[in-house]
Amino acid sequence: MASLSSQALDAVKPHAKLAHADATSPTEWRAALEAANDAPAGFELVKTLVFKPKTAKSAVPVPVVVIAREETETNANAIGKKIGAKEMRLAAEDLLQEFFGLDKNSLTPLALNSETFSKTTVVLDASIATSTKPLALHAFTPRDTVFVKGSDLTSYIRGLETAETKVHEIDFTEPTTGVEAASAAAPAKKAQAEKEDAKIEGAVQVAIGVKKEVDFAGWYTNVLIKADMLDYYSVSGCYILKPWSYSIWEAIQEWFNAKIKELGVENAYFPMFVSQKVLEREKDHIEGFSPEVAWVTRAGQSDLEEPIAIRPTSETAMYPYYAKWIKSHRDLPLKLNQWNSVVRWEFKNPQPFLRTREFLWQEGHTAHLTKPEADKEVRDILDLYRRVYEELLAVPVIPGVKSEKEKFAGGLYTTTVEGFIPTTGRGIQGGTSHCLGQNFSRPEMFNIYVEDPTDPTGQAKTYVWQNSWGLSTRTIGVMVMVHGDNQGLVLPPRVASVQVIFVPCGITAKTSDTQRKEINDKCDELAAQLRKAGVRARSDLRDGYTPGWKFNEWEQKGVPLRLEIGPQDLAKQQTLSVRRDTGVKAPISLSDILTAVPKLLETIQTDMFTRAHKTYHEHIKTVGDWDGVVPALDSKNVVVIPWCEVEECEDDIKERSGRAAEPQDERAPSAGAKSLCIPFDQEQFGKLEPGTKCVACGRDAKRWTMFGRSY
Amino acid sequence: MASLSSQALDAVKPHAKLAHADATSPTEWRAALEAANDAPAGFELVKTLVFKPKTAKSAVPVPVVVIAREETETNANAIGKKIGAKEMRLAAEDLLQEFFGLDKNSLTPLALNSETFSKTTVVLDASIATSTKPLALHAFTPRDTVFVKGSDLTSYIRGLETAETKVHEIDFTEPTTGVEAASAAAPAKKAQAEKEDAKIEGAVQVAIGVKKEVDFAGWYTNVLIKADMLDYYSVSGCYILKPWSYSIWEAIQEWFNAKIKELGVENAYFPMFVSQKVLEREKDHIEGFSPEVAWVTRAGQSDLEEPIAIRPTSETAMYPYYAKWIKSHRDLPLKLNQWNSVVRWEFKNPQPFLRTREFLWQEGHTAHLTKPEADKEVRDILDLYRRVYEELLAVPVIPGVKSEKEKFAGGLYTTTVEGFIPTTGRGIQGGTSHCLGQNFSRPEMFNIYVEDPTDPTGQAKTYVWQNSWGLSTRTIGVMVMVHGDNQGLVLPPRVASVQVIFVPCGITAKTSDTQRKEINDKCDELAAQLRKAGVRARSDLRDGYTPGWKFNEWEQKGVPLRLEIGPQDLAKQQTLSVRRDTGVKAPISLSDILTAVPKLLETIQTDMFTRAHKTYHEHIKTVGDWDGVVPALDSKNVVVIPWCEVEECEDDIKERSGRAAEPQDERAPSAGAKSLCIPFDQEQFGKLEPGTKCVACGRDAKRWTMFGRSY
Repeated sequence: MASLSSQALDAVKPHAKLAHADATSPTEWRAALEAANDAPAGFELVKTLVFKPKTAKSAVPVPVVVIAREETETNANAIGKKIGAKEMRLAAEDLLQEFFGLDKNSLTPLALNSETFSKTTVVLDASIATSTKPLALHAFTPRDTVFVKGSDLTSYIRGLETAETKVHEIDFTEPTTGVEAASAAAPAKKAQAEKEDAKIEGAVQVAIGVKKEVDFAGWYTNVLIKADMLDYYSVSGCYILKPWSYSIWEAIQEWFNAKIKELGVENAYFPMFVSQKVLEREKDHIEGFSPEVAWVTRAGQSDLEEPIAIRPTSETAMYPYYAKWIKSHRDLPLKLNQWNSVVRWEFKNPQPFLRTREFLWQEGHTAHLTKPEADKEVRDILDLYRRVYEELLAVPVIPGVKSEKEKFAGGLYTTTVEGFIPTTGRGIQGGTSHCLGQNFSRPEMFNIYVEDPTDPTGQAKTYVWQNSWGLSTRTIGVMVMVHGDNQGLVLPPRVASVQVIFVPCGITAKTSDTQRKEINDKCDELAAQLRKAGVRARSDLRDGYTPGWKFNEWEQKGVPLRLEIGPQDLAKQQTLSVRRDTGVKAPISLSDILTAVPKLLETIQTDMFTRAHKTYHEHIKTVGDWDGVVPALDSKNVVVIPWCEVEECEDDIKERSGRAAEPQDERAPSAGAKSLCIPFDQEQFGKLEPGTKCVACGRDAKRWTMFGRSY
Repeated sequence: MASLSSQALDAVKPHAKLAHADATSPTEWRAALEAANDAPAGFELVKTLVFKPKTAKSAVPVPVVVIAREETETNANAIGKKIGAKEMRLAAEDLLQEFFGLDKNSLTPLALNSETFSKTTVVLDASIATSTKPLALHAFTPRDTVFVKGSDLTSYIRGLETAETKVHEIDFTEPTTGVEAASAAAPAKKAQAEKEDAKIEGAVQVAIGVKKEVDFAGWYTNVLIKADMLDYYSVSGCYILKPWSYSIWEAIQEWFNAKIKELGVENAYFPMFVSQKVLEREKDHIEGFSPEVAWVTRAGQSDLEEPIAIRPTSETAMYPYYAKWIKSHRDLPLKLNQWNSVVRWEFKNPQPFLRTREFLWQEGHTAHLTKPEADKEVRDILDLYRRVYEELLAVPVIPGVKSEKEKFAGGLYTTTVEGFIPTTGRGIQGGTSHCLGQNFSRPEMFNIYVEDPTDPTGQAKTYVWQNSWGLSTRTIGVMVMVHGDNQGLVLPPRVASVQVIFVPCGITAKTSDTQRKEINDKCDELAAQLRKAGVRARSDLRDGYTPGWKFNEWEQKGVPLRLEIGPQDLAKQQTLSVRRDTGVKAPISLSDILTAVPKLLETIQTDMFTRAHKTYHEHIKTVGDWDGVVPALDSKNVVVIPWCEVEECEDDIKERSGRAAEPQDERAPSAGAKSLCIPFDQEQFGKLEPGTKCVACGRDAKRWTMFGRSY
């Protein structure tokens, strides 16, 4: 591709400006370019999409390459009608590789040359030619961006035309019909107008810009940005947690801190730095982390004598001190926890909350005299993790134990709460509580022992039993993915920093100042009353924004309950409540408000959990034979199967479930399934009869095990 | 010294083992060696002290070099009597340099050779010869430690003897009298016995091992270790905050969070990493930090394309996003705060809590439309810092503004709360609230502006006014230094994680099991009652420890109130209360306990503050002429003087106050004084008459300014 790339670049070079920023979605791309600070002002993204129309089996497929402004809504059916292609679907990766040697994140109009042009149908967004903004194109990688003029890009593409093959230039701004979005007032008018321009036939305008069920990754980042939860940061893989998301973490901290303190756990703080020698003490453990460890090698202008690691987790940093502090069985149990950030410099695609290079978490590290005591704590903590998900975030999880392959490096066994993202049909690990056994305490490791109090000679040593357990800000990402919708975020009331928003309504040009003041004052007064009653209520009295614009904003931000107050409501001494989760509207009498609102918030909390729980369990398919596994996975389910618990079988399942899934389009998960957990509640799947065989390999099955594609 | 050092090392080499660990006090030395993990088991430290006896002015001084096991209490007067020297004082640094070319932290017996031996009187701890433990000596630097056998060390020293000059070998274990420490039972007996061995005539046994007024630095680290607040860590300059200190930080966090939220501040989290380009954007600012910035250059096995800094503070990391987020005056004020850790890789001697390479703090960053609004917030926050010190930690502070020389790099002005450590007579900066002005928002910097809402054309730009403010775990160190005594830590009740400790007493061999149970149950029951009433109470029912041992332990840990319950107390339905701060004992009727205890805790809190406040103000000397300045400083005061506020004058004061102070011994602060703050409350020092001249330079004085030697 090297010669091709230089040739294409040469064609647009006079006006090209290069910038660098990793990106896997348009939102990320834009944010990364902005964060990198070297993009020209007011740039626009250009997307390059490749569709595969329905083709007779014997025929060579002719891909349709669509080059359009990112904002342009490129409905596949509408395009298909224009150019006379049927059942256009986004092309699979192998097709992209075959035709362009690129993947979907590095596709660029510059990949079109005289050779590829003749084998494809090219559709060009007509508005590109007249665009006055710098247009951002990938330069053959998701990392490099080149900025060009619209006229230059059009000339380049047009320059490839031959007598036989012409470009299809489509005006995507042709009049269309569509469902109107919530009314938008002055500040949003311009953006709204631009969106209207981009609408095409059949498109449904949604507040969040991207539909959850169509482009889940794009929807996710859009929700995070539009709900003001997060911003991209100039160091790749790191993100800014804004107050709207950080407050959720604070709510989790407050609840969890109280619970672990009841269990006798105390908070402490260990340094973020770990010396190389200490870090590398436990071989299995460090093998799991070493490719991701960030190293400090310099301070000011001085090179350090030896590099110092930033903790990826703190087992090896803490345990030399456990060895020092634990002198007698009276020092047991030792139960410490810390709230901190850890760094795992992953080179895989980062994803906000789910996979970030620095993330916030708590890590608990405890030492016990006996295994039963350690075992009990592992489960007590796991149950707290379950409750964080289920009771605070309204996200159902399945508690269970990890397979040997999936357990924590260096530990004895790992327990987990496993969540599920219905839109993608993928499982997601929610939090893990590990029993480390005596692997870290044994003499050749950290040598943490006490004299056995039951030994009459007082000579016998007992090596302590250790646990470690961690829950991270990933919780927030899972919550967003499970509950968010096409209007934006949906917050469970218990973690919402604003639970109730009052919006004054029905104020028109005719409304008198007195009446306007009366309504505003009422909103403030009721919000204050509710706050006194322990409800996190706020009133939105901003001038210059219509109620509709405010509705939209608070819906995007996921506030659980909106209370509208207009002149008629005042007259009737009521307020109109609107639930974020269901959209259901109902009047509440002002005299009841202090009891009705907390009750309604609890109902919302419960309903959100109940719905999510139902959805999760509808997507857990108990499968008794291999033939059922892949179709179930392909239909966005996880499966529960009788399983032998043999590691090679797990590898084999991954292999077979990955290979078998021929993706219909790029969004269908085609990765192989791994074991998510062996659920503690085995009974829910029915009795596993003696002699039941493993669904995958035919060995004797041990337990029902949940497998799925996952994050 | 190179040849000398090799010669000395050669003499002990056959048994030598080298280890490396920075250390400036015995406690640090030991902890660092233990943390470094390559010291032989059960080693003991050897101290080398140099005294200067009273010498006729004309005579050449003959220093007394004392080589002893660290545990041996080497009372100068007692040694003087034995060898016939008078008024022995620890030698000043210049004497050490002159005789040995070493400072006090690198002094080693190995510095004695045939040349130096003849010019000094050498005293050798007799128990060294027979010690079976590996003995740790400095190897000419505070960093390198060599381990030798006691017999080898003795041989080496003895080998230097000549016919004229002999070693004085002293048996420090000779019977002595002394004040007994609190009675200690089984678990402490061995340590106690060892201490008894080391006691010499006139020595006062103190729980903490080192007297605050004699060796403040040693006392400080001993208190932190013995109170279980902190441990040394294998990365130099980093420390482990154990629950006993971290809980104080949590108390500060809880209080401060509530207060700033009332001011409309929201918590957020920005990444710990800052790209080089962003970090170096503000020149003045980065100049202040760049020698201390830690750089990550490698991840796993891959070198990063460009090094990434760990934040030393977050101004430059955050403000590019402030520029992005602040689009209109409606977005103002923007008030964010984060609780995080920052890294400043200082090469000066680290000191727990006061100067550490990583430390915990909060950093608030706000943006305002107008200067008056920013000014007001600077002072509001500073007042919260004052209240953290005064109301939570019972530590008095003086609020004021910093001089131009001492202000925050890159800011407009800095306000501060200045504390005072009476034992050393030094000031200490407690927390700072900066107005950054428009220095970071201006167009060539981060370009943070809004359209001026008062401008009718809507074209004028207003650059925002910014503040930043931070309070760190240094608070805890200051509290320890101000309140701690020779029994250990003294905690103000409001931040004590245990406010009240019940200790069962008067249980003897004759006590029946029923009676014992009754007493223990009563302790538990009362503690539970108090906890219900909001008092953090606990009962210490551990078997195998005497009441005296428990008293000692909880006193070391600084628990504000001890409540003793014995058979007679039970009979009288009372408990004996013992205040940690004053030692005052008083019975409390059990029927009053729920009201009396909270009241007494409040009294302790108030009394602690009142006493500390009185002491601080007794040590603030208003001085009207230069001749009074240095003597006042030398008597462990800070001074308040009429001052011109000219930077050269400040440099000059530092120079003159440093030079003038000829130290009597190593502990007298001889560093130059700097301006601590210009107190807001000027009236307390009387009216500054027009025409008053600067005490230092004779220019016109502007305001009363506090100067002092400082941390």
